[in-house]
Amino acid sequence: MRLVSYREGGEHRLGVVDGDELIDVTAGVGERNQPGAVSPMRALLSREEPVAAFLEAFEGRRVPLDSVQLEPVIPDPGKVIAAPVNYRDHQAEMQEDFHIDALGVFLKAPSSVIASGQTVRLPYTDRRFDQEGELALVIGREARNVSVDEALDYVAGYTMLLDMTMRGGEDRSTRKSFDTFTPIGPFLVTPDEVGALDELQLRTWVNDDLRQDADIRDLIWGVPQLIAYASSVMTLRPGDVITTGTPAGVGQVVDGDRLTVEITGLGTLTAAVSSEDAVVCPTNGARRGPRPPEDVTPVRSR
Amino acid sequence: MRLVSYREGGEHRLGVVDGDELIDVTAGVGERNQPGAVSPMRALLSREEPVAAFLEAFEGRRVPLDSVQLEPVIPDPGKVIAAPVNYRDHQAEMQEDFHIDALGVFLKAPSSVIASGQTVRLPYTDRRFDQEGELALVIGREARNVSVDEALDYVAGYTMLLDMTMRGGEDRSTRKSFDTFTPIGPFLVTPDEVGALDELQLRTWVNDDLRQDADIRDLIWGVPQLIAYASSVMTLRPGDVITTGTPAGVGQVVDGDRLTVEITGLGTLTAAVSSEDAVVCPTNGARRGPRPPEDVTPVRSR
Repeated sequence: MRLVSYREGGEHRLGVVDGDELIDVTAGVGERNQPGAVSPMRALLSREEPVAAFLEAFEGRRVPLDSVQLEPVIPDPGKVIAAPVNYRDHQAEMQEDFHIDALGVFLKAPSSVIASGQTVRLPYTDRRFDQEGELALVIGREARNVSVDEALDYVAGYTMLLDMTMRGGEDRSTRKSFDTFTPIGPFLVTPDEVGALDELQLRTWVNDDLRQDADIRDLIWGVPQLIAYASSVMTLRPGDVITTGTPAGVGQVVDGDRLTVEITGLGTLTAAVSSEDAVVCPTNGARRGPRPPEDVTPVRSR
Repeated sequence: MRLVSYREGGEHRLGVVDGDELIDVTAGVGERNQPGAVSPMRALLSREEPVAAFLEAFEGRRVPLDSVQLEPVIPDPGKVIAAPVNYRDHQAEMQEDFHIDALGVFLKAPSSVIASGQTVRLPYTDRRFDQEGELALVIGREARNVSVDEALDYVAGYTMLLDMTMRGGEDRSTRKSFDTFTPIGPFLVTPDEVGALDELQLRTWVNDDLRQDADIRDLIWGVPQLIAYASSVMTLRPGDVITTGTPAGVGQVVDGDRLTVEITGLGTLTAAVSSEDAVVCPTNGARRGPRPPEDVTPVRSR
């Protein structure tokens, strides 16, 4: 099952994709679109009953998929938990002494999410910004200290995410939390439809150049271990996002670039890049922090 | 005006403090306490009309203040934005080469908040944990790229926060986001009642030892500049928390300690410390990262 968050008539709505159409299941979730209320997607994930059982019983209005304005697949995540260095080839290109087992996880601002097809707005004229394509998941049940063996039971579904990043010495949360720095979507694909995570491949293009081409099985901490660890640090709640880290091939993006991520079975995530609103950076971390290659890295050979 | 979040009959409620009593204003906010719904405090802050005007018109049931179970003053902040090194005496004790103007801000997990009077649970047996007392504020209106001059107009009120911290080389978000690592409260005090921020003093005790004794005017980035900067990175929304950083005097806390923070006019924030659930740390950042003094630092002389 593939779910989408979308906007129609100024309201947040929730749909189940069926071919070229979506079935509007917003009313079934019972949300009121009041100020401060959670999105229909988050309301759905917060329900006690399983998502699939609920949705299969609901028959909503059908709408052509290409007629709606997509929203971030989860417009209001409670947390966006991210893995700092979780592929060895990315650790090597960044010349990082440490990886996730020394670094733990970091947080991106929930306010940084945008929908597939929207525009990443680079904030500064004088800093470098890179694309990082990633496999992400959305939590469907509260999780605290779950074991590696049970961890996947807490996943509502999978999606893709661009962890847009400013290079430099500022705290990771700042460098990765600018508004628009987390394109996420287009779909939330339920685990039954995704199948074995070890079989998935991730590819990221900037314009027509393939920059990242990786196997998800090469994660240092695989998805179950990452969920189990994150749940040992902080209680995970329905609608929280965990993104798994990026492989080698990060590189600078500039005004006018088009970004594309594909992961087996998850569709296509796109974003444009604009520096239209960029100003001079007010913080001075430019010459510090881990350095990726100056040139765009060729994709690694498989 | 002083607001509290509290729990009664299993429901999240919102009160206005009046002497030894509180006035239950939950019904006026119109929240339903459904799963996934925002807290009455966040619903209040998300309303279009000013908080004071709304509350002054509302007459609720009176309850003795000491009869209710306090909750974190904002139980479900959308973001907890924090200042990494924002007092020069703290920069000196940590032997940090950089302060906030090179580091920007970092994020703590919203799931880490606890109420005044609750217990900080140290997760690991083999790591050092420190107390960091701080002045914090809660955002009352959406803020994006606001100027320093206008920044205080976006503050709903002020409170106190303990930014509990694991020392080491893990990402700041991990070291500061363990469940229970953000005691916050007890009250949200509206700006009219707080008065001039430059007049405020902050004191933190561990048991009966005064560890931190500072003037808020010694912040490197004062409150308006911190809000303006944070709003230039990420859109601030009602219910977001910004905490301003800690002065010199951070030091280790252990099982059985009692923590107390006081800031002029904001009441008293307390927390107990327990290592009852502690296990061996699964990440290996122990010997890296900025080091505060091994001995508990005496408070600086004024």
